[in-house]
Amino acid sequence: MSAWGREREARDARITAGRSLADGKHVAAADAVALLEAVLRPGDRVCLEGDNQKQADCLARALAACDPARVHDLHMVQSGIVLPEHLDVFETGVASRLDYSYSGPQGARVARMLSEGRIRLGAVHTYLELFARYFVDLTPNVALIAAVSADREGNLYTGPNTEDTPTVVEATAFKNGLVIAQVNAIVERVPRVDIPADRVDFVVAADRPFYVEPLFTRDPAAMTETQVLMAMMALKGIYAEYAITRLNHGIGFGTAAIELLLPTYGERLGLKGKIATHWALNPHPTLIPAIESGWVKQVHCFGSEVGMDRYIRERPDVFFTGADGSLRSNRAFCQTAGLYACDLFIGSTLQIDLAGHSSTITRSRAAGFGGAPNMGSDPHGRRHPSETWLKAGREAGGNGDPALRRGRKLVVQIVETFGEGLAPAFVERLDALAFAETLGLELAPVMVYGDDVTHIVTEEGIANLLLCRDADEREQAIRGVAGYTEVGRGRDRAMVERLRERGIVRRPEDLGIEPLDADRSLLAARSIKDLVHWSGGLYDPPARFRNW
Amino acid sequence: MSAWGREREARDARITAGRSLADGKHVAAADAVALLEAVLRPGDRVCLEGDNQKQADCLARALAACDPARVHDLHMVQSGIVLPEHLDVFETGVASRLDYSYSGPQGARVARMLSEGRIRLGAVHTYLELFARYFVDLTPNVALIAAVSADREGNLYTGPNTEDTPTVVEATAFKNGLVIAQVNAIVERVPRVDIPADRVDFVVAADRPFYVEPLFTRDPAAMTETQVLMAMMALKGIYAEYAITRLNHGIGFGTAAIELLLPTYGERLGLKGKIATHWALNPHPTLIPAIESGWVKQVHCFGSEVGMDRYIRERPDVFFTGADGSLRSNRAFCQTAGLYACDLFIGSTLQIDLAGHSSTITRSRAAGFGGAPNMGSDPHGRRHPSETWLKAGREAGGNGDPALRRGRKLVVQIVETFGEGLAPAFVERLDALAFAETLGLELAPVMVYGDDVTHIVTEEGIANLLLCRDADEREQAIRGVAGYTEVGRGRDRAMVERLRERGIVRRPEDLGIEPLDADRSLLAARSIKDLVHWSGGLYDPPARFRNW
Repeated sequence: MSAWGREREARDARITAGRSLADGKHVAAADAVALLEAVLRPGDRVCLEGDNQKQADCLARALAACDPARVHDLHMVQSGIVLPEHLDVFETGVASRLDYSYSGPQGARVARMLSEGRIRLGAVHTYLELFARYFVDLTPNVALIAAVSADREGNLYTGPNTEDTPTVVEATAFKNGLVIAQVNAIVERVPRVDIPADRVDFVVAADRPFYVEPLFTRDPAAMTETQVLMAMMALKGIYAEYAITRLNHGIGFGTAAIELLLPTYGERLGLKGKIATHWALNPHPTLIPAIESGWVKQVHCFGSEVGMDRYIRERPDVFFTGADGSLRSNRAFCQTAGLYACDLFIGSTLQIDLAGHSSTITRSRAAGFGGAPNMGSDPHGRRHPSETWLKAGREAGGNGDPALRRGRKLVVQIVETFGEGLAPAFVERLDALAFAETLGLELAPVMVYGDDVTHIVTEEGIANLLLCRDADEREQAIRGVAGYTEVGRGRDRAMVERLRERGIVRRPEDLGIEPLDADRSLLAARSIKDLVHWSGGLYDPPARFRNW
Repeated sequence: MSAWGREREARDARITAGRSLADGKHVAAADAVALLEAVLRPGDRVCLEGDNQKQADCLARALAACDPARVHDLHMVQSGIVLPEHLDVFETGVASRLDYSYSGPQGARVARMLSEGRIRLGAVHTYLELFARYFVDLTPNVALIAAVSADREGNLYTGPNTEDTPTVVEATAFKNGLVIAQVNAIVERVPRVDIPADRVDFVVAADRPFYVEPLFTRDPAAMTETQVLMAMMALKGIYAEYAITRLNHGIGFGTAAIELLLPTYGERLGLKGKIATHWALNPHPTLIPAIESGWVKQVHCFGSEVGMDRYIRERPDVFFTGADGSLRSNRAFCQTAGLYACDLFIGSTLQIDLAGHSSTITRSRAAGFGGAPNMGSDPHGRRHPSETWLKAGREAGGNGDPALRRGRKLVVQIVETFGEGLAPAFVERLDALAFAETLGLELAPVMVYGDDVTHIVTEEGIANLLLCRDADEREQAIRGVAGYTEVGRGRDRAMVERLRERGIVRRPEDLGIEPLDADRSLLAARSIKDLVHWSGGLYDPPARFRNW
């Protein structure tokens, strides 16, 4: 066996080393550092569970406290770089290589540490791509994960924030890797088994409940009339025209405004039951009014959202829930759903160039893209038609035999022409390219490539890139909705007017929308408190969103 | 609750109806028909587990025996249409609608029943796409699955053929659906928990072990020198040139020959450790010599293969195995790995047209495509570079800013110019288009679209479509390797010679390969018995592959 069981022997040796600190599989939080020092080996590939929301923070603190003389040069393979400890390990030398997907709050520090050479970067992946590599060439040797509770045997209950856990555990546990779970509580019997005990080697009773970020909560009180106007255009000019039933919304006020317009403006347009029925989406609080008004048939979730658990539990016809009644989310399956089973992805970005390429990476921030590259791409493997998809395919045209024509996924960018700090959203060249040059990256960190984008929505109008027949038309269509940015001012006015006549550029008036009607009163909820009211008191917003 | 818990109430009612036939969750095989009649409702979406290999055959027989007066108009949503019973249900009226992926042995009957209007077809999906829809708009109401064993509580052990089961169960059990498992045995304790009991509603002790098809076994004795020649060209002209380490092989003698040439011809070319180290692949018996020679670092599997279980168990450093020591396969994750973490997909087809579009669907057979559309597509969401991928991207070129250049996935078709029954593999127009016209399909059943194919390998040579700069060059490159087929004879000889000078068409001699060297003696194993020998007696081939 030994010639072919080296990994398994190494694994057994790690377990033996850890067992001396454990009672069965159970280890006290105070012994977490000692446990990690006992089981980790220099150079190990480690997934320290940092999801989009849930964080294995107790284990993150323990890893950051390890002695770099014993634990060093780890290769971190995790979707989220979210906590300070996720980067502290690179300062101390505990870790040296990184492959990740998303680093919202730590984006500036990631960029700085990359340019200082403190992190050897593999790549910035889209989630599903990183998960894919877990099974091929980035299989973790050790997974440090987070769950709500464990029983004595080590069966785990992840609760609503299942997220990446089943995927990480599957890749690790079945390839001779070690799985260490931090849990909020040890219980007699877990409410449901999210991870069976035979995939779990050690359980650490955490000193406090794992951290979860309310990442998808957008306060309606902060929504502007510009956002309402863009949402009206998207609904009338895209959702209605393509009859979009299966979709994903990215994060942002623009898409949250669309959610809040469904029961008002959407209802007025007679769209109920005809659009936005099936979702791959986190449980956005701003979707509550649409759910309560009977718009939404079902929602599969990547993760949960702080404060939404009780509401979800009482809406089992809409959400995926377990035998215990609470949400079962799953990022890998939801990303797969977003890729292959949705007809529309709509999200926001920081910069768009003249060809429609977009990125949220700037010179000083490496935020990563999460799911956008995956869901914002046209999946060439798709083989099931839908009216929406076929219509987009017809618009895209092409010269070949019509019998061979495919459909197209709708990929929409919804942006205000000037973003935060009045930074223009439209640029001649993405900052991401300068970022790549500075760091010597082989591949520029583009979020969505221009050839996958079908529409751009701004407060000035909608550009339909499917209908553009060459690069010039495409550039002018983009300039034509870029407002008073330099890119917008650089437009060929006559050509933009011709594009408008062909329906490639559409203004609010072309859509029969009066900008003065874009009023906050159209929002089905105008505050977090309204959302609580819509939910019948079931939505329990985090403290920072409460001002009453 | 009732306004929002209708699905859950319906589910509870089904369980109550079924419980009268059960002892706890357990139901005798003799009561399987009664159980299905009690819990199914007309119009239900049902996943009757028909995987690429494993079949829930006991439940399939029970479903086919249901009284159509009670159970009718089911919508079958399952990846494989493999057993006669899978179609019998459409003859009796038990089922009326179908969404599927693959129907190898039943392909001719599917085509006939479609043209007779006995089946209302949704679409022929690629596996991952169908799984995606399980979470969005094709969520099963009832899943009828297969496992090796169950304990009294209903924890399931799927054994090496885990395949689709975890995905089907997740989509069904967490959306108020019912999960019914047939098992070969009831045991005191399952060897590992593949599916936790709280996702399983009923367990049927099957009258005999579930059926598994040895789909990926290719007998080396049947390999021809033509196949050896094509394999040599693929290895030297593609694998070596692009330094392909992460890959997937489709089914077929051409790719099996490549596997068998690694330890001989590959070794001679000095490629060991440089190519073919990380695989997304079923456990092909023809990979045994390469594994035993130390070529293969790891393999993640869609499913298992009959006879390979003991070998896999003794090679845990290579395969993903569980706490019980046996393979853990997973089709959803392996397809994801094939999509996003592999640099090459190579497979075969029945027909290729002048633009490189290919299909295995002919006028009389609707075999489906399984994983080929997914793995044979260039994933636009990919954001991690590799040398292989970047080189292919450079060859594909494009006019844009080089700073924005992406890589490309290598998608290779390996075909003999004349296939079974001397049918030409190259055609002016795919039969799939006529098939679509006859049935009035909105989308022609193309397996891999031409714009995703990068290379075509035949016994005449390799066509590199990446280097073609327009549709004419592409067509002539394809004609240039199409041999004596009509398409091949229709080539523009002068242009093909020019393409050859540019390395777009390459003959064996251009690659430094002497066709006379393409001898069966190059195969590391020349019979099934040789494979058994290579495996040290661990490979246990099915009876039909034994002739000694």
